[in-house]
Amino acid sequence: MKALLFDGQTRLVEDYPRPQRAEGEALVRVIKAGVCNTDLEIINGYMEFRGVPGHEFVGVVEEAGDGRLVGQRVVGEINCPCRRCELCRAGKGRHCPERTVLGIQGRDGAFAQYLALPEANLHVVPDEVSDDDAVFVEPLAAAFRILEQVAVSDDDTAVVLGDGKLGLLAAQVMHTKTDRVVLVGKHEEKLGIAAEFGIETCLGSQSRAIKARIVVDCTGSRDGLQQAIDMAAPEGTVVIKSTVAEESCLAVAPVVVDEITLVGSRCGPFAPALEALRTGKVAVQPLISAMFDLDSGAEALAAAGRDDALKVIIAVSSR
Amino acid sequence: MKALLFDGQTRLVEDYPRPQRAEGEALVRVIKAGVCNTDLEIINGYMEFRGVPGHEFVGVVEEAGDGRLVGQRVVGEINCPCRRCELCRAGKGRHCPERTVLGIQGRDGAFAQYLALPEANLHVVPDEVSDDDAVFVEPLAAAFRILEQVAVSDDDTAVVLGDGKLGLLAAQVMHTKTDRVVLVGKHEEKLGIAAEFGIETCLGSQSRAIKARIVVDCTGSRDGLQQAIDMAAPEGTVVIKSTVAEESCLAVAPVVVDEITLVGSRCGPFAPALEALRTGKVAVQPLISAMFDLDSGAEALAAAGRDDALKVIIAVSSR
Repeated sequence: MKALLFDGQTRLVEDYPRPQRAEGEALVRVIKAGVCNTDLEIINGYMEFRGVPGHEFVGVVEEAGDGRLVGQRVVGEINCPCRRCELCRAGKGRHCPERTVLGIQGRDGAFAQYLALPEANLHVVPDEVSDDDAVFVEPLAAAFRILEQVAVSDDDTAVVLGDGKLGLLAAQVMHTKTDRVVLVGKHEEKLGIAAEFGIETCLGSQSRAIKARIVVDCTGSRDGLQQAIDMAAPEGTVVIKSTVAEESCLAVAPVVVDEITLVGSRCGPFAPALEALRTGKVAVQPLISAMFDLDSGAEALAAAGRDDALKVIIAVSSR
Repeated sequence: MKALLFDGQTRLVEDYPRPQRAEGEALVRVIKAGVCNTDLEIINGYMEFRGVPGHEFVGVVEEAGDGRLVGQRVVGEINCPCRRCELCRAGKGRHCPERTVLGIQGRDGAFAQYLALPEANLHVVPDEVSDDDAVFVEPLAAAFRILEQVAVSDDDTAVVLGDGKLGLLAAQVMHTKTDRVVLVGKHEEKLGIAAEFGIETCLGSQSRAIKARIVVDCTGSRDGLQQAIDMAAPEGTVVIKSTVAEESCLAVAPVVVDEITLVGSRCGPFAPALEALRTGKVAVQPLISAMFDLDSGAEALAAAGRDDALKVIIAVSSR
């Protein structure tokens, strides 16, 4: 099959072996895949991953042990736990130390014509959700993870730092719980998208005086966490969504004095993400910057890395 | 009155003005005061405090608006909020931006013959609690703050990092909730105290493989937080008790990937601390390293800074 391979360099391979589905797994033909910043970090060496990157996708099940899945349009959770260890038994499979992660760790991903995932990871996509929208389920689920970790009520103030893809999703998710959301970013055009959703926006340079009970760091930058801490009110919470490979240097004393809570936040629940897309509570169409086919996968990654880019989608096959 | 003054240097002053008690405040004659690491940081420049340090004390009320307080033996909460601002009205007076803090910020402290505090800050000490024990109420309350911030159940594993004064208190407080507490430190003698309380101990060099649901950083060192993060299990919680003036450099990506929660933790509730001392649930006598009188206050601070020291008490007056 065709696949975009990263083995130190990124290149299209025409005859990459089609993944073997293990017991309990399904073989999925990829329709579309989304490029995430994590993919860009991977091709910069993060996680020391070698193989086919890509973990945001919508596809059609071609083979599965459970016959009812075959032919269904699906999205898939990316963590594949062992289902036997202590963490798995405690319901924390996303943190299984033996896990593989689609396109990130020990498992080829979605920038290819086919991928394999455990059937338990798959979610059937409702007809009302388009292929393009479905590509956003995985990152949107990561944004919904915030609501599993932090109680947000309608009188809470929330700042989302960073007007990239994840910031625009996180701001919308926070906005489902409270009107008092401010998206802080550096790009007038990207902030304009949030403004059209009715979300207050602020250019970074004007944001110094903001203090909020909840601050979500979606900057993807090593300086973002310190900025987020500086914007958190006493006893406030900072949700850390940025996975930055380098170390961050932080003034920790204010975290203690102001009793700030910092919450690392990674993957999230697919069900509320699918439901928010189905009902239109969260809109993702304005976040699509460009569409490439798999043959132009390397160009897609380059385009996703541009400062003005939002979501770049790789169209792999038709429904 | 006599006071130990820090004005860039630490020196005993014989004729320092006795504090004026404002409306709602009490004048307290200090019996004994404890030396905290924060005092040592203050005389190294932390908080840019000038005045009389010291915030751990037991004393006798000499003057108060509420006559029932006069003559009572008391300990006192150190944060003096404005009681009017938004945070105060929300019950978060410890974080009032206008607050003064006894011996730390804008208010002379306990290394003197007298101090003034709002009557609302005072707690009468039960007869069963000795003067020496009462000096520990403030730091012990800070340890009990952990239980207000993190739910600890009897099947939780907890590591307390740092075998100093606060670590030995925090380990005992955690031990009131779960038997599965490990105190990790560098000093066999200090670890030996915890071992006598029935708490498992571990020399730092042997602790690498430990993973716990809750890790409390009481190291007081800039490297402590990274060590604490490394010891936290996925979805675990790190309680940060160390106020380190310098920046800490951290690998933040593992916090996100493992979804660790970091909780800044400062001052705590006096009532459970007094009760734990009254009932003997927490023992503090073995933590007393030395006793000095106020005239030898500078020596007391020097002694408290020694690597093998635990709590140094300054005896100011008799009951």
